[in-house]
Amino acid sequence: MKRPLIVQKFGGTSVGSVERIGNVAEQVIRAKQTGKQVVVVVSAMSGETNRLVDLAKQVDSVPNARELDVLLAAGEQVSMALLSMALNKLGHAAVSLTGAQAQITTNSRHNNATISHVDTSVIDQYLDQDKVVIVAGFQGVNESGDITTLGRGGSDTTAVTLAGVLNAEECQIYTDVDGVYSCDPRVVTNAVKWPEIDFPTMHEMARKGAKVLHLPCVSYAWQHQVPLRVLSSFESGQGTLVVGEQAKAQVQGVALRKQMRLLKIAKSHVDVVDKQKEMLGVDEAEWLHDEHFSQLLLKSDCSDKLKLVIENKLVAEQDVALITMIGVEAIAQASQYQQLLNHSDISVLHFCEDKHSITLVIEPEAIDKAAVVLHDNTIITSGTVVEDVKQVHLG
Amino acid sequence: MKRPLIVQKFGGTSVGSVERIGNVAEQVIRAKQTGKQVVVVVSAMSGETNRLVDLAKQVDSVPNARELDVLLAAGEQVSMALLSMALNKLGHAAVSLTGAQAQITTNSRHNNATISHVDTSVIDQYLDQDKVVIVAGFQGVNESGDITTLGRGGSDTTAVTLAGVLNAEECQIYTDVDGVYSCDPRVVTNAVKWPEIDFPTMHEMARKGAKVLHLPCVSYAWQHQVPLRVLSSFESGQGTLVVGEQAKAQVQGVALRKQMRLLKIAKSHVDVVDKQKEMLGVDEAEWLHDEHFSQLLLKSDCSDKLKLVIENKLVAEQDVALITMIGVEAIAQASQYQQLLNHSDISVLHFCEDKHSITLVIEPEAIDKAAVVLHDNTIITSGTVVEDVKQVHLG
Repeated sequence: MKRPLIVQKFGGTSVGSVERIGNVAEQVIRAKQTGKQVVVVVSAMSGETNRLVDLAKQVDSVPNARELDVLLAAGEQVSMALLSMALNKLGHAAVSLTGAQAQITTNSRHNNATISHVDTSVIDQYLDQDKVVIVAGFQGVNESGDITTLGRGGSDTTAVTLAGVLNAEECQIYTDVDGVYSCDPRVVTNAVKWPEIDFPTMHEMARKGAKVLHLPCVSYAWQHQVPLRVLSSFESGQGTLVVGEQAKAQVQGVALRKQMRLLKIAKSHVDVVDKQKEMLGVDEAEWLHDEHFSQLLLKSDCSDKLKLVIENKLVAEQDVALITMIGVEAIAQASQYQQLLNHSDISVLHFCEDKHSITLVIEPEAIDKAAVVLHDNTIITSGTVVEDVKQVHLG
Repeated sequence: MKRPLIVQKFGGTSVGSVERIGNVAEQVIRAKQTGKQVVVVVSAMSGETNRLVDLAKQVDSVPNARELDVLLAAGEQVSMALLSMALNKLGHAAVSLTGAQAQITTNSRHNNATISHVDTSVIDQYLDQDKVVIVAGFQGVNESGDITTLGRGGSDTTAVTLAGVLNAEECQIYTDVDGVYSCDPRVVTNAVKWPEIDFPTMHEMARKGAKVLHLPCVSYAWQHQVPLRVLSSFESGQGTLVVGEQAKAQVQGVALRKQMRLLKIAKSHVDVVDKQKEMLGVDEAEWLHDEHFSQLLLKSDCSDKLKLVIENKLVAEQDVALITMIGVEAIAQASQYQQLLNHSDISVLHFCEDKHSITLVIEPEAIDKAAVVLHDNTIITSGTVVEDVKQVHLG
């Protein structure tokens, strides 16, 4: 049984100015006026984190990790205080809490910490007083009382974790897009916004390159059964609700990944290279093996680092792009995808299968064209499909 | 027995840029290299507090007091982290602590809190590890865990309080002047810098308008026997050491107060006006009574507020300035001061005696000239006097 409580998360652009903070306050009040308790998680005002990092780099090109966290945590402290002032001014009692005050305990990995525990007693106490509780995203405190930060996507992680431990009805992620689309709408103009999408599909989309939600946020929400909603901070609308365990049969997402690279390695060196890859902390890399060679598929920037240590073991390399078709049926349709691309003079260099998806490795120049061809010919050809899907989901 | 520990306090201009923070780091290292433990208290970078207050005022002309403290406290968090980075980069282990982390407990009077207790265990733990401990000035935390700020001069208060509870040898206040002068050197060019000054004189100077040290800082240091040293952040030198219980006989300070006002009140209304003055929180106001009328002497800006509520009880008002001669002998010399001023065509409107000082109320236009006349003719006429005094103090 969920508690009548909404967690809302607003990113840096949403709180990027005093005027926008005023808009956020109005969004918060709308949620409060439905009679529910509201916990708000905020990022630093856009530009502020960069300003602070610039100051730090002026002092030291590799700033002390503990102190960088102290510095960056000041960013959310500003935005949360301003939002709380705005709410109080509008007659809605609100209180802001730093990560430490909200008792968000993390491990001690500075700049990239993981939340280990949240003691909700302080938050609960203020919620019981009918106050809106505003919590600094992205930050926590380790067992020794040092300030820590969570790394990339940290405010989303804070929001979904609070939604989990508080047993919230919904965790709303306000962002600069108005929902989850079938493909990046800047590339595929026919991309459609889903009113609802299941966790397995959303998870696979995040894992394969869709940027709308961070993977750890989706993982946590799925694991703890927290309904997630992606909404625009700037437009009204219901956004996309991420909910449900059951992956749809039909393809719902086309995820794109540009700036990838294939490194060709002699089979005898695979173990050594694999170890070096681990040591460098390169993740999201994948091996493709054939009879004679093995190829490591990874991000271009990670590849640059790895190449420095494996130089003599590298036979050849190639820039590539990835297009992933997500849905249970996708794997069975591999040959159709290949045909469609061949008709458009695009060759598929490799296929990589996953549980709910198939990834096509192609030349980087072809990615946008391939996305349009595969998207428009296989899954969605008109807006009406969205309605059909909606009926399936809600029916 | 004092502990071999120095507390150094650097104000906003001292940490006003990354370059200046580098200079501060060098000052800290020089103290550390004498073999002593060092605790550093920093203010927010100059301009930062104003920037944050401006943001708050854009949200609400009277911002929520609790949230204003959360907002302002972010200022010192930035400067302390940058200083700690600078020290760590230079090979000196340092750690920064917010008011809450340093366990500086205050009462709950937001924006103007008073320190009630400091638990030094966290600071001591880091000092035992031979680290420089950098503490955010101006801020603390109340019993409920809310962030508080100490109001004007708060970083000096933090520094002197830490020096007291840590039993430090010395509390060094780095500022934009290089010591305590016999009078404001911008007004009296012959003003001399004291190498040493006693607490009763320094206290009276701060109380009567000298701006070099805040009164609560001097009071605390005197009460807890913390030797205070005023130094320049930008020039080398020994500055002025404030130490010793015994007030000197000779006049050592001429304190000036401009922008004061005399409000003439019918005797029958004195009690009512006094009560209204209390209610408005007007402090540092003084009654002068004569046979027919009573006059209230107070700051012009306080007077403006008070006048709104006592309008019909006000008989007349006059802008004035105050010049206070500080020293045990000063009171006996009142008539000489009057003669000196009369020779320069300056009339004395009133005298107010205190334990170690006498204050002359004059017309505001005459203040600079009166300061030069009284200073140069009574206490110090040449630099050699400084040496004499030094001998007296050190002999």
